[in-house]
Order: sequence, then C-alpha cells, then structure tokens
Amino acid sequence: MSQLPTAPPSGFRDFLPASCAMRARAAEAIAQVYRRFGFQQIATSAVEDLPVLLGKGGGENEKLIFKLMKRGAQLEEAKTSGGELADLGLRFDLTLPLARYYCRHGSTLPHPFKAFQMGAVWRAERAQKGRYREFHQCDADIIGSDSPLCEAEIISALLTAFEAAGLREAPQAVVNDRELLQAVLSEAGLPAEKTAAACVALDKLDKTGVEAVRGELEALSGSEVARRLEELLLSKPGDLERLSRFQPQAAARVREILSLVNGLRADSAVFSATLIRGFDYYTGPVFEFRSPRLSGSLGGGGRYDRLTEKFGGQPIPACGASIGFERLLLLLEQEGLETAPGPDAVVTVFSEQLRAASLKAAAALRHAGYAIDLYPGAGKLKKQFQYADAKKAAYAVVIGPDELAAGQATVKDLATGKERSVALDSLAEAVKKG
Amino acid sequence: MSQLPTAPPSGFRDFLPASCAMRARAAEAIAQVYRRFGFQQIATSAVEDLPVLLGKGGGENEKLIFKLMKRGAQLEEAKTSGGELADLGLRFDLTLPLARYYCRHGSTLPHPFKAFQMGAVWRAERAQKGRYREFHQCDADIIGSDSPLCEAEIISALLTAFEAAGLREAPQAVVNDRELLQAVLSEAGLPAEKTAAACVALDKLDKTGVEAVRGELEALSGSEVARRLEELLLSKPGDLERLSRFQPQAAARVREILSLVNGLRADSAVFSATLIRGFDYYTGPVFEFRSPRLSGSLGGGGRYDRLTEKFGGQPIPACGASIGFERLLLLLEQEGLETAPGPDAVVTVFSEQLRAASLKAAAALRHAGYAIDLYPGAGKLKKQFQYADAKKAAYAVVIGPDELAAGQATVKDLATGKERSVALDSLAEAVKKG
Repeated sequence: MSQLPTAPPSGFRDFLPASCAMRARAAEAIAQVYRRFGFQQIATSAVEDLPVLLGKGGGENEKLIFKLMKRGAQLEEAKTSGGELADLGLRFDLTLPLARYYCRHGSTLPHPFKAFQMGAVWRAERAQKGRYREFHQCDADIIGSDSPLCEAEIISALLTAFEAAGLREAPQAVVNDRELLQAVLSEAGLPAEKTAAACVALDKLDKTGVEAVRGELEALSGSEVARRLEELLLSKPGDLERLSRFQPQAAARVREILSLVNGLRADSAVFSATLIRGFDYYTGPVFEFRSPRLSGSLGGGGRYDRLTEKFGGQPIPACGASIGFERLLLLLEQEGLETAPGPDAVVTVFSEQLRAASLKAAAALRHAGYAIDLYPGAGKLKKQFQYADAKKAAYAVVIGPDELAAGQATVKDLATGKERSVALDSLAEAVKKG
Repeated sequence: MSQLPTAPPSGFRDFLPASCAMRARAAEAIAQVYRRFGFQQIATSAVEDLPVLLGKGGGENEKLIFKLMKRGAQLEEAKTSGGELADLGLRFDLTLPLARYYCRHGSTLPHPFKAFQMGAVWRAERAQKGRYREFHQCDADIIGSDSPLCEAEIISALLTAFEAAGLREAPQAVVNDRELLQAVLSEAGLPAEKTAAACVALDKLDKTGVEAVRGELEALSGSEVARRLEELLLSKPGDLERLSRFQPQAAARVREILSLVNGLRADSAVFSATLIRGFDYYTGPVFEFRSPRLSGSLGGGGRYDRLTEKFGGQPIPACGASIGFERLLLLLEQEGLETAPGPDAVVTVFSEQLRAASLKAAAALRHAGYAIDLYPGAGKLKKQFQYADAKKAAYAVVIGPDELAAGQATVKDLATGKERSVALDSLAEAVKKG
C-alpha cells in the first residue's frame, strides 16, 4: 500500500496544543468583548451556492473560490453536457454570507442589528509564508443604521478586542472615506472609469512606495493627473482639512468618527487619504488597524450600504469590520505569550488492580473543579512522572497499595520534587495552586 | 439582475442569535470538561488531500466526500486529459485527520496523547429532516495506550460533558466489543467473508426490528446460521456472561470498562451484543450514548488500534469518541433551555450632539465589566426602548441635555418600567443585576 501524506494540503495547517490553546483563548476574549458591546453571535454555513459567492460579475472573486464538485447523477450530466461541474463553493469572507443572512432573517431580528461572527474562510490563493488558504475571521457588523456612531462603536470594539486578546502594543485605526477619495480623484482630473485602476495602484503604496505608485498613476492617466494626485494624496496623506473642501460631508463624517474614537482612547485613530481597503462593496468610511510591528493590517472594515441589494432587498445602511485572526495570532506569538497551562495534577496509576482507586480520586478532584489528567494506562511511576512534566502539571498524585490501605495518597510537587502524604478525602486541598 | 437565493444550500444552515448562543454555551461547556479531564485541544484543517480521505479502498467513503475542484492550469489539464478533476476534499469526520496529525506530530507530543477537537465536518448525504450536510463534532481521543482505562475515561468524560452542556436526563453508554462480536459470528457458523454484511444487517436492528434483521441474516447465510445468531445475539443482547466464553479476553475488557464507568456513576453503562457502530476502523471495544428521548445516538466511539498504519506508521493503540453536537442541541432545545441572555443595559442616544456622552457612558460601563449595548444611531426614545426590549436588556440608560448638565443619567428598569436618576459616575452601581 502506498503511503499517504501526513502533512495537510499546501496552504492548510495543523495546530499543536500550545498554539491551539492560544487561539482558543484569543477567540474567547474577542467574543466576550463583542458580547460586551451588545453584538449577538450568528453563524452561517461554510458552504454557499456558487452564484451567491460569484455575485453578478463573477470576475474578481471567481479566482478566490474553492468550488465543490457536483455529485452523483448531476455530475455525470454536467460532464456529458459540458455544463458547470461545480454547484457550491466555500465562503471567502463572512460579510457576503451576512448580507444573505440579513435578507433572509432581517424581519425577525432586532433593528438595527448588531451581529458578530467567528469562523473560517477559504481562499484559493497561492500559498506563501504567512498567507493561508484557510484562515479565521472575527467580524462585527451593524446593519440598519447610517450613524457614524456605528463606525466608532465598531472601531472601539476591535481596539478593545485586540487588548483583551493580550496584545501589549495597541494598534492604531486608520480611517478614510471612499466618497472623499472619489472626490479627490475627480478633482485631480482622473476620468471616472479609471477610478478602480487608480485605487489598485494606490493600494500598493505600503508595499511598493511612493515612486512606484506615481509611476503607475502616470502610466494610467498621464503626468499632470499623476502630479496632482501625488500632491493631494501622497504628499500629506494625514491632512484631512486640506482635502475636506472636495467632499465636506464625507470629511465631516471622518472627523466625527475620529473624534468619537479618540475621545475614548487618545490617538487611537488617524486619517489617511491613501487608505483603500480592497473590497469593492464599500460605499463610505473605510478603516483598518495597523501595528508598528507588522506590515499590512490586523483587520479592517467599512461601510457597505448597498450589499443587500444583491439579494433583491432594499439598500440597507450597514457597517462592519473583521479581525484578521491569523495576523493577530502572529503578533501574540511574537510577544511570546505563555504556553498552554497544564492540568492541576496528573493522577498516576500504580497498577491495573488499583486503577479504579485512581479513577475515583481523579473524578472527585474534577468534581471539585480541578483539571486532572489521569495517566491513561499503567507502568513505571518514573515514566508517569515524566508524562506529568510533559503535560506541565503542578502536582502528581500516587495511590499505591500502602497509601490506599491507609486511606491516603502521596502528592508530589513537580516544581520542587517535594512529596507529602495526604488523606484521600482532603486531596482537593492539597492540589490547590499557590 | 436576477435575484440570488437568500437561503443557504440544501442541508446547510443559518443560526439565529438565540440558537447560536445556545450552541456557543454548549460547546464551551464540553471543551471545559475535556480540559478538566486532561485532554489538550488540537485542530486540523477542514480540507484534506483526497487520497487521505479516500483511504486505500475509496469505495465506502467516496460517496460521503465533498470534493474540491482543481484550479487554474491544473483544472484545464485535467479536463483536457480526462484526469481527476478534484484534488482536495472536505473532512467527513475528525478521527481520520487526527490519525494523520498524530503520524506527523506524534514524536513532539506527550505520550500517551490525550487530544480533543471541536469542529465542523461535511458529508454529501441526501439532506433530510435532522440530517445535515455540515455538522459539528466534539471528539476526545487517547493515542498510545491499550488500557481499558482509556475507554472508561473517555466514556466518563462524555457523560460529564453531556451533563455540563445542560442535558437534564443523563444518557446511557452502551458498550460492545468487535472481537467478541466476531467470535460470536464465527461460533454461529457465519463465514468470515460475510462478517461485514452481517454487521450491516445487525446495525439496522434499532430501525427495522428483530424480524427484519433475522430475514436479512437468513438471506445472507441460511436459516441455521440465522437461528444461531438470533439465539446468541438478538434474544438477550445484554447478557455478557452468556457470550463471554467465545472470547474471554474481550469479555473481560468489556466487564472492566463497565465496572470502572459504573463505579463512578451507577448504571451509566451497559453491555449490548448487537451494538455495531458503522466505522470499519474499530478493532476492539465500541460504545455509543443513547437517550430515551432520542432514536439513534448522541455520539459514540471505540478503539481503533490500526488507523495510523494507513500513514505508514506503526500500529498504535488508540481509542476515541465523538459527541454528535447537532443531536445534543436537538435534545437541549427540546428541554427548552432559556434564550440568549440580553445585555445588562442599552444606553440610548438622545441626539447626534449628545452621542459622545452616551458613547463615554457605555465605555465606562463596559470597562466595569457590563455587557452594554449602545443604540447604534439616534431617533425617538420610544423606538430605542423597543430596541432595548427586543434585545432583552435589563435596563435602558438615557442621557439627555438636562441629565448631562446635572452630571446624571436616567436609568429605566425595563421589567418594571420604573425610572430613577443616577449620578453618571455611579452608573455601574445602578445597572448591577438583582
């Protein structure tokens, strides 16, 4: 029999216990913050109908989507007729499923609706260092309100969540507005049909630098427009007041968001005229979270007032953001968070004859609220102590024939190596930490 | 533009907030019990290479698997050459990925290794009531020990987890042993090559009843063998001692498991000679969990000492079990668990001018540990109170211009309708529950 691979497919990952414990802790901390901000958790399926994922145009997203093959007779039929071979696909973000969900369930939900989601998404991108084909997102969205309070609440929630997850250095929120950007592009003389291409060029600013972006803008629309854009956008991207006259309403919205967020945490949000955020469904404010210790962002979001139209609904004002969980974990790991906590004690098993006694002692300790690892088997105590060390347990408990006859157990402190005898019915006291 | 579907694909589900809160609570309760039993959480990817999922034979599992189409040039090449169109697939359980994981990482893990996993699995089965194509499993496994203590620990952990998840009526564990069953089948004169077919017939006992199963066994191996099987297996399936002589070692193992489990919880585990459990990788004890209020099982597992061989490893003794999370939730919902808890308070927003004051009050309350829903917008207070009712908040907080000038807020108890004035800096006291 030929051997099967033991690694997951390229771009997919296994998680070892320490990493998994860190992920679970961070995810729970984020969920608790979202709940504390009044967001209600929802969930959708990992799998969507392909037309939902492809949207009207298909183009942009199509390359991202892992498609699921049709099955059985439908697959055979498609093969014979040369029809579509796939009918389903894996979701590539949590926002599109949310829009579908809201169009279906909106009438039964509170209005406005504050939702959060935690889950995996999949993108069929080329796997490379730090970029995975399966990764997790933690989204918070408010559907049904056009108030800048939504942006402020969501930005504050994410800043609080980063802190709760254990990030020592607070990220900063960078805010822009699509309408303001559009006005500046027009002002510089860029034809409307070149907006998308200009945004693609601007979006590379962090990666390629000013020179390269100016070059691309020149190639796109000539040197005069590129010069104007450089002057307006690239030279002082943080100066909101200078650009405000091109779209006063959008500028006022950004100013309000910054004021509300910075009112809670000084200097936690700044304006940048060159922030783009890739998704084309954003209609107003956009923002992302940056750490000085990470290129790229820790997450981001924005206002998307028209996404529900795709599902035949009325346009509904909506705003949301996503934490890039994998990038957050990367930072947390760099900060060297402690490894997974071990159990309070490992209860050893002296012999096959005495395993019921150890099982009972373990059950009593667990019932008292302790995390107790019962050694799964029997064998030399030395090996069992090594196991207890490997599991980072605080204590090892031994119940041999002499101990059992005397109604006692030996408790070994694994840090100091000290042992003491304890009555079986006061074991819980003995393994108390500290 | 044609309208997109707002429902998820057939067999897939959306979860509303109340249902999602119940699921999150149950999952966290189960994870806590697993941790308290010394299991360490691990995770693998949702997607595996197809050969890993298909195994050597393919046959049995192939129908279950959602296959992911190749992408780009590889897909074109496969289409032209008539080759395989899919290269990846969604996992259909958590045990096979665990075996792969252990073969890859085993040398760096504690030995024996106690692992737990929580996650979605996918099966391309016909969608029907109560059967989903995406569902969650909560697995606990011990790899590297052949002690019956493993089965006892795992069964105890699952019984404790069911209780912790909130199930009022405790399920019972039903235990059998594949080697014992095999010995009884041989004793009855069934040829070895018909074992699998006989197990398929026996597995239907709960669904189709004794008559139908006897009929199938007769058709399979003649009336004499069927008569013997009925006498041995179907007439008194709970009588372990009667069958013990056909495989004394396996019977002793079952007896030990029952004794250990029942020593902790009386009558929580019983023997049944007709328990099969579908998966063909089980090599010894098998068990499942049954509730009188549910046909079928709440989960199950068994010993699978040879699964790692598929990945070229040595055979490693292993034992594990899975909670059928969807079925557990079905029971919890039938028991009518309370709906999602609301926030401690909704802080209303009196006007656009005063939203910063409300945002600050909300931030202070959240900082004090309360779950606070800030109304996302402004508008009539009446509408905001209705929103607070819909969110099941305990209190609504109003900060109007008069209140703000006096450094106060109005706190409305939403259950009684009573209002009182509270100093802004002692708001936290006022929204304390009870």
